[in-house]
Amino acid sequence: MSKYAELCAYGRRGATLKSIASLLGWDQETYMPRGGGDARAEQMALMAGMMHERGTSRELGDLISACEGESLNDQQSACVREFRRDYDKRTKLPQSLVEELARTGSKAQDAWKDARKNNDFKAFAPWLTKMVDLSRQKAEAYGFKPGGELYDALLDEYEPNATAKEVEGVFTPLGEKLSALVKELKDSGDAPSDGPITIHAPEDRQHALGLHVLRAIGFDLNAGRLDITTHPFCEGLAPGDTRLTTRYDGKYFPGALYGTMHEAGHGMYEQGLPKGGTHDGPGGEAIPSFGTPLADDISLGIHESQSRMWENMVGRSRPFWSWIYKEACDQFAELGKFDQEEVYRAVNIVRPSYIRVEADEGTYNLHVMLRFGIERAMIAGDLSIADLPGAWNERFKKLLGLDVPDDTNGCLQDVHWSFGLFGYFPTYTLGNLYAAQFWQTINKELPGLESDFAKGDFGRLKTWLNENIHAHGRRYSAGELCEKVTGKPLASQPLMDYLGGKLREVYKL
Amino acid sequence: MSKYAELCAYGRRGATLKSIASLLGWDQETYMPRGGGDARAEQMALMAGMMHERGTSRELGDLISACEGESLNDQQSACVREFRRDYDKRTKLPQSLVEELARTGSKAQDAWKDARKNNDFKAFAPWLTKMVDLSRQKAEAYGFKPGGELYDALLDEYEPNATAKEVEGVFTPLGEKLSALVKELKDSGDAPSDGPITIHAPEDRQHALGLHVLRAIGFDLNAGRLDITTHPFCEGLAPGDTRLTTRYDGKYFPGALYGTMHEAGHGMYEQGLPKGGTHDGPGGEAIPSFGTPLADDISLGIHESQSRMWENMVGRSRPFWSWIYKEACDQFAELGKFDQEEVYRAVNIVRPSYIRVEADEGTYNLHVMLRFGIERAMIAGDLSIADLPGAWNERFKKLLGLDVPDDTNGCLQDVHWSFGLFGYFPTYTLGNLYAAQFWQTINKELPGLESDFAKGDFGRLKTWLNENIHAHGRRYSAGELCEKVTGKPLASQPLMDYLGGKLREVYKL
Repeated sequence: MSKYAELCAYGRRGATLKSIASLLGWDQETYMPRGGGDARAEQMALMAGMMHERGTSRELGDLISACEGESLNDQQSACVREFRRDYDKRTKLPQSLVEELARTGSKAQDAWKDARKNNDFKAFAPWLTKMVDLSRQKAEAYGFKPGGELYDALLDEYEPNATAKEVEGVFTPLGEKLSALVKELKDSGDAPSDGPITIHAPEDRQHALGLHVLRAIGFDLNAGRLDITTHPFCEGLAPGDTRLTTRYDGKYFPGALYGTMHEAGHGMYEQGLPKGGTHDGPGGEAIPSFGTPLADDISLGIHESQSRMWENMVGRSRPFWSWIYKEACDQFAELGKFDQEEVYRAVNIVRPSYIRVEADEGTYNLHVMLRFGIERAMIAGDLSIADLPGAWNERFKKLLGLDVPDDTNGCLQDVHWSFGLFGYFPTYTLGNLYAAQFWQTINKELPGLESDFAKGDFGRLKTWLNENIHAHGRRYSAGELCEKVTGKPLASQPLMDYLGGKLREVYKL
Repeated sequence: MSKYAELCAYGRRGATLKSIASLLGWDQETYMPRGGGDARAEQMALMAGMMHERGTSRELGDLISACEGESLNDQQSACVREFRRDYDKRTKLPQSLVEELARTGSKAQDAWKDARKNNDFKAFAPWLTKMVDLSRQKAEAYGFKPGGELYDALLDEYEPNATAKEVEGVFTPLGEKLSALVKELKDSGDAPSDGPITIHAPEDRQHALGLHVLRAIGFDLNAGRLDITTHPFCEGLAPGDTRLTTRYDGKYFPGALYGTMHEAGHGMYEQGLPKGGTHDGPGGEAIPSFGTPLADDISLGIHESQSRMWENMVGRSRPFWSWIYKEACDQFAELGKFDQEEVYRAVNIVRPSYIRVEADEGTYNLHVMLRFGIERAMIAGDLSIADLPGAWNERFKKLLGLDVPDDTNGCLQDVHWSFGLFGYFPTYTLGNLYAAQFWQTINKELPGLESDFAKGDFGRLKTWLNENIHAHGRRYSAGELCEKVTGKPLASQPLMDYLGGKLREVYKL
């Protein structure tokens, strides 16, 4: 067996371990009885230990080095490059720091819960200080490219090869234009009514509608499922096994409908990755791709581009409602009181609010950009923890035009920082940016998509995504893939064109 | 840390691995999408490999040997004795034989499926010959006590320390008396009508009734669940996490009701084992019992005694129906056409039939005894495979009074032999025997149980089982426990007294 084949086999075994750990996680959120919690923690710790041991072993390092000396084609080289990337990341962090991050993060998360509940930022501040400090240590251990900054090292965990400066270059113009657009919509005298989206919608009917949509858009339910959890997620558990979850609010059906489409977008990426396939080894032999970077997702940003495209570009479009309106009325009797256009307008309402996870398509990215600016400054040491609430409220007012009433509705609302997720937030907006830029290209390359959608036919879009995005695994970085697919580096204009075009029309501007 | 504590910690890690493998199995039967099958096989194989490696390691052997040289109390000695037993069993089989059994068993199972479908014993005969031969090799590798026989070594896997001769000593008188009883009931002119048990019973109502019964008898639903599968089972997954499954037949509610009570009996044994507790180490330190034989079940026979007691002694009793009749009528409207006594009599109908898994309480053990006699003769080499159908049909006629119409309804009906489960069948009847003998003692020690049941109060019975059976783990063998609890070695009289007493009264004899 070639060293390359050995490396891939090693990766496959590790991916199988990871898939088992994923099932433990999925089961914990879905069906595990309450009493199983302690045992589940033991099981997870055991799996994490085994995965860490394998993922940082001398054996793996030697295999990668051996492959780096072999003569490989472009695809194989990319595969080895990404194996190297992951291995170096894992081995660069001292074990003591990994443990300290886990231990302190766990306590800080508890402290955050109390602080948010009691609107008591001061109680959380010392914990946040510790987590920022530990995250800086982590960033220093990772290192970053010349001319960059500490924050890059953290961002790189979630969006490989991206830098804060590049992100800033796209975010800044986006922020300005978005703020202006939101203000313009707010001042419009013709806002849609939320009547259609506050009707009574029984949970079982919502579930039936969700499954109907999943089948139509092409999520394979023979290789996946849909369950109910408190916090919706998608788990690409294993080849042929991708699990989505959602939750139902009987008085707000768009929550579950778009949540399900969002997770299905993630799920169709997972199902589209070549996990079940093979690629050529150095001797021309077929090597299973599962467990290699060739069957893995590129970045959180690209993953999010898939979920946001199905949720927003498809699900909040007029042709989608031409198709689903009748079925939705069959499921929710009260919806028939409103015509199709009223429903379409209602699911596109833009209304600035305090909480990111409840934000609409128009304001969502402003919430993300706020966090990006603040966490970047905290990691750089340019913003002291004590000044966080003030900085948050000031920027919030500037971006969204609202006075933040308290820290619970302000800088304490998200869990991320409490366990050290710095560099994660920007991937949400990167996802929207990638989605819009892909979307522009897709509509050029696939004319007449809208009339497909109006008939409930989403096949051409899914095939395009399978072939142009999913099939490559991690062969290209997110930036490379964007240029390869759209011919241009990532920019803010496609997202602004898409949002401005749709929302101005919805608001009759 | 003492060697004893080290040994227990080693066992705990192994038990955690096993609990993860159990979740993989549970999920495969309940919620896994069809497409996940291949990946699941990989996951299971990986877990099995790791468990085998740990369970047969030199490290484990050395730890056990070291403990055998230490000064331990009775409980600790029993713990080490059982660690030794398991280790020796695992290490006695050559790896090549283990693999051959798995490989041939898998193919033989496929062959059996076809053979049963086509009523073609001859097509299965060569596979059965191979499996008997491999099982004999396995028995030889295990070895057996002086004066015993090859079959003992196989029986010992499922019912430790039991011998064929002992089993025969109890089965022979039981078989004679049972055959006579079944004939007596058959000749009675006053058989109950099956009207009450062939009513329409919607599946969701059956599910509600099942949960109601689970709560009442004391299965802890905060530390367990009830799901639906093709083949019902109980999985004592981990401390605090015991999962039952059942299936619903809308035209035969006793199937799910008694199936659920049966699995709950297994489940309450699993919940009653001291998996969450500790015991004293050699230095008086508290050692978690999970993963040691002190928190493990004794044998399949004892496990089955728990399921059969709740299913039959409790669930098919008159006081149980005094309590549940009203609730059952509330769930199943048609049941109200029959009075309580008619329902009680109907769930106790005895009617000889061909298929073991559908057999009633009166004839079930005759099916098991038939298989015990035949498999014992096959392993001893006293019955050639070619003669199996003839021997089956002849004995069936003698025990149950019916002419077997074909091998599909005869010797091809059970899957067990196709993958080498020889020595497993007798544990079903041993379970009934243990249950009846415990039952006799329980009713002496807890007077007035019946009036508790009639009020829906099953607490005293559950507590008695927790304290007298579950709490000991594997400290005592099944035979020792039986003598300790009932004062007598296992005998057939208690089961005959119980069955004869109840069934003659039901049949008004």
